[in-house]
Amino acid sequence: MKHAIVAAGGAVHQASATDDGRVQLPDGRTFTETEVTWLSPVEPRTIFALGLNYADHASELSFQAPKEPLAFLKGPNTLIGHNASTKRPEEVELMHYECELGVVIGKEAKDVAKENAYEYVKGYTVANDYAIRDYLENYYRPNLRVKNRDTCTPIGPWLVDRDDIKDPMNLSIRTQINGKTVQEGSTKDMIFDVSDLIAYFSSFMTLNENDIILTGTPKGTTGVHPGDEVITEIESIGSLRNYIASDQTFQKA
Amino acid sequence: MKHAIVAAGGAVHQASATDDGRVQLPDGRTFTETEVTWLSPVEPRTIFALGLNYADHASELSFQAPKEPLAFLKGPNTLIGHNASTKRPEEVELMHYECELGVVIGKEAKDVAKENAYEYVKGYTVANDYAIRDYLENYYRPNLRVKNRDTCTPIGPWLVDRDDIKDPMNLSIRTQINGKTVQEGSTKDMIFDVSDLIAYFSSFMTLNENDIILTGTPKGTTGVHPGDEVITEIESIGSLRNYIASDQTFQKA
Repeated sequence: MKHAIVAAGGAVHQASATDDGRVQLPDGRTFTETEVTWLSPVEPRTIFALGLNYADHASELSFQAPKEPLAFLKGPNTLIGHNASTKRPEEVELMHYECELGVVIGKEAKDVAKENAYEYVKGYTVANDYAIRDYLENYYRPNLRVKNRDTCTPIGPWLVDRDDIKDPMNLSIRTQINGKTVQEGSTKDMIFDVSDLIAYFSSFMTLNENDIILTGTPKGTTGVHPGDEVITEIESIGSLRNYIASDQTFQKA
Repeated sequence: MKHAIVAAGGAVHQASATDDGRVQLPDGRTFTETEVTWLSPVEPRTIFALGLNYADHASELSFQAPKEPLAFLKGPNTLIGHNASTKRPEEVELMHYECELGVVIGKEAKDVAKENAYEYVKGYTVANDYAIRDYLENYYRPNLRVKNRDTCTPIGPWLVDRDDIKDPMNLSIRTQINGKTVQEGSTKDMIFDVSDLIAYFSSFMTLNENDIILTGTPKGTTGVHPGDEVITEIESIGSLRNYIASDQTFQKA
């Protein structure tokens, strides 16, 4: 089953997907994709992100693959839903999309063994974890300005139940800019897979329901510019549309 | 006025301090300090922490003072209240206390000018932002294991209203272990002061009510060991007691 959180009819609702792709509210009303405001499909307390978790991407950036997950936290200010716009600072050169599998935690987890890790997964979503490399001083310290700007993590549209995805470690990943494919990969190329990551984080931190792990991106990240339509998609999980707007002309309303 | 969040009488309450130092619930009941379970006095969405924000501490660690705030985020799993115990991994050598002024945000803030920054402050508290330096590979990337373990950020006991503190940039800071003073400093030695930090973070991130900024620690950080009583205190803000327990014998109940 696919779940979303949308604003429609003057309120926020937990929604689901109908077989013909409409958005259904619990009271039975249905809407087209463009009739609702999509919010993040999950409200995490803690948002984990991974650097260099695909060997091909680490190589592309001329870094050695890490021996331990290279992880950092992100703030909820970064999240926006499907079909929304991301502010791009006017003065930067290198703002890169990053299509990523988002893994949503289903229940409180501490000291989880790798072989039991999937018991703690609620489901999956798609994220676009934009990085602004102009601000990067040191790859091992993603300055907050690189990864924590408002609106720089579109996520959604759907949270897909864990049991609907037979093998999360063998899903194709793709990014398109203005209809052209610019990034292609597969989750099978992750260095630390979903069960590794849950075992690692839970070895020293308690994970909570709705926490989310953004699992890194494969090679092929390039720049985006104002006016671009950016679609990040993962097989069986969803297709997440996002637009780029200059922060100088961005309407906050 | 001083505010706290405590569990007492089978429920969680917003409490305040009486003139004679008791904890008062909204219904008028009062308790001694040891009769309640102290929780974090604030429930932040985003927890900011600063590295090397006191010149004397940067020098002590043989680092140059940063030219821009060296900031990272922490998860809510790290927070515990006054009088609680922090788990110390059995195998580490260098687990250091860090007494820090916590600045709590009072309302949504974006693009705040330095001269208006205090309008966005709700109040202040004391935090002990433990660092486990054994896990540090690179000072500019505090590995999550250094700063994000469960229970490694005692905070409280009180949130003190902004207007009760005339000059937050001139408060003495002190840590005692088992009654012996081991760290002394003053908030006047911060490299980036409270208004600098609010202006900086809000220039690229929206701050929300109850977000907290842990503003860094002065020199004099040394190790703690199981059984230690650690008191971190800041003039006019409060005195925060915390105990160290081995993670091998820690009772989770």
